[in-house]
Amino acid sequence: MSDVLKRLAEVIASRRGADPEKSYVARLLAKGEDAILKKIGEEATETVMAGKDGDRAKIVGEMADLWFHCLLALEAYGLKPGDVLDELARREGLSGLDEKAARKDGERSDAEGLTAKFKQG
Amino acid sequence: MSDVLKRLAEVIASRRGADPEKSYVARLLAKGEDAILKKIGEEATETVMAGKDGDRAKIVGEMADLWFHCLLALEAYGLKPGDVLDELARREGLSGLDEKAARKDGERSDAEGLTAKFKQG
Amino acid sequence: MSDVLKRLAEVIASRRGADPEKSYVARLLAKGEDAILKKIGEEATETVMAGKDGDRAKIVGEMADLWFHCLLALEAYGLKPGDVLDELARREGLSGLDEKAARKDGERSDAEGLTAKFKQG
Amino acid sequence: MSDVLKRLAEVIASRRGADPEKSYVARLLAKGEDAILKKIGEEATETVMAGKDGDRAKIVGEMADLWFHCLLALEAYGLKPGDVLDELARREGLSGLDEKAARKDGERSDAEGLTAKFKQG
Repeated sequence: MSDVLKRLAEVIASRRGADPEKSYVARLLAKGEDAILKKIGEEATETVMAGKDGDRAKIVGEMADLWFHCLLALEAYGLKPGDVLDELARREGLSGLDEKAARKDGERSDAEGLTAKFKQG
Repeated sequence: MSDVLKRLAEVIASRRGADPEKSYVARLLAKGEDAILKKIGEEATETVMAGKDGDRAKIVGEMADLWFHCLLALEAYGLKPGDVLDELARREGLSGLDEKAARKDGERSDAEGLTAKFKQG
Repeated sequence: MSDVLKRLAEVIASRRGADPEKSYVARLLAKGEDAILKKIGEEATETVMAGKDGDRAKIVGEMADLWFHCLLALEAYGLKPGDVLDELARREGLSGLDEKAARKDGERSDAEGLTAKFKQG
Repeated sequence: MSDVLKRLAEVIASRRGADPEKSYVARLLAKGEDAILKKIGEEATETVMAGKDGDRAKIVGEMADLWFHCLLALEAYGLKPGDVLDELARREGLSGLDEKAARKDGERSDAEGLTAKFKQG
């Protein structure tokens, strides 16, 4: 299933410089980073709203929008979805909470596998 | 690279019911959907801020946080990352702008391949 | 200076049912609550981005947009800016941190005056 | 009702340099602009979520949080709530939609009074 992100990123990259009249991607890349970041804020809000509606089809649709504009942001900043996926994979095997527990216990408990980073709240 | 999302989703699903003291995932799933949606809003804001900083490592880190909490939301609503990827793939071959152009021109231009859906703004 | 919010709320209320072709307010109220909430998400993102730019004129402009759409939301939900200002005033005289300190010290320290409510993070 | 914003801004300004252990305001100002901007993103998301719940008390509470952190941002950037209120007042008497209509009609219709600025979407 999951080469979709890679493939989409390639299509997005190939649209750079295309006719902004014909390509939404070209249009947004031409507008620049701020326009793309703004869309991430918008689509995140709509994803949250779809979640509040409890409407699963809408959640999927809005999250697709969110991820799509994330891919656009990655292209704008010279990054690839693989960079994000690598970071997520890198965090596997590390669990902040487990690590803290391990430090307290003097022994390392099972790693949670994905939440290397913790934030309050 | 790209089974990372699927694998992460499986690990997240396996944490349901784990000890919230030890697992961030279990803790957030126990708190419920609102807590997860709130995190999506937070992480999207931080992704936007990292973009404004133009700090590529930070962009990757914050977007990893954003996608990770998206996977948590999918789990909370009984969905899978494949649902979102399928939706993204489904939109390929359709371009709103191209379609509009095609309707105007009376002929179908090349599909853009990924932006089936259009929103103003 | 500060009857501006009250006056704006009155103008907004008076636009209900106006011609959506001529009035942005009527148009957004006709679209409904979701359209207004979405704008709050958008304008908050733009306020954050203006802050990252450190551009004071832009911060003022985007925050004006944000507050304006907050007033629209209040109207949509049958509320008034005074409800929010009353809540802010009500919180004066209470400080979560001070209160916690006071409970520890066995005496009540000076109230901070405005942060009754605390959230982690 | 409406000197509340001005008064709150003065209290916030007076907290600069206070003990961050005792004052939430001092703590957030010491953390810096990014911490405050992040809170604006968070509180906007929670306002949107309260709106989706249709819970009027919650809407008031979350919007109070949002405005409060807006005041903190204004202080951080050397601005005052009056700057935002002046901008809102300045926009009165101008309506983008009306203006567009006026330009089309060759005559100036009644100003809407508050939406000088238009954005798509």
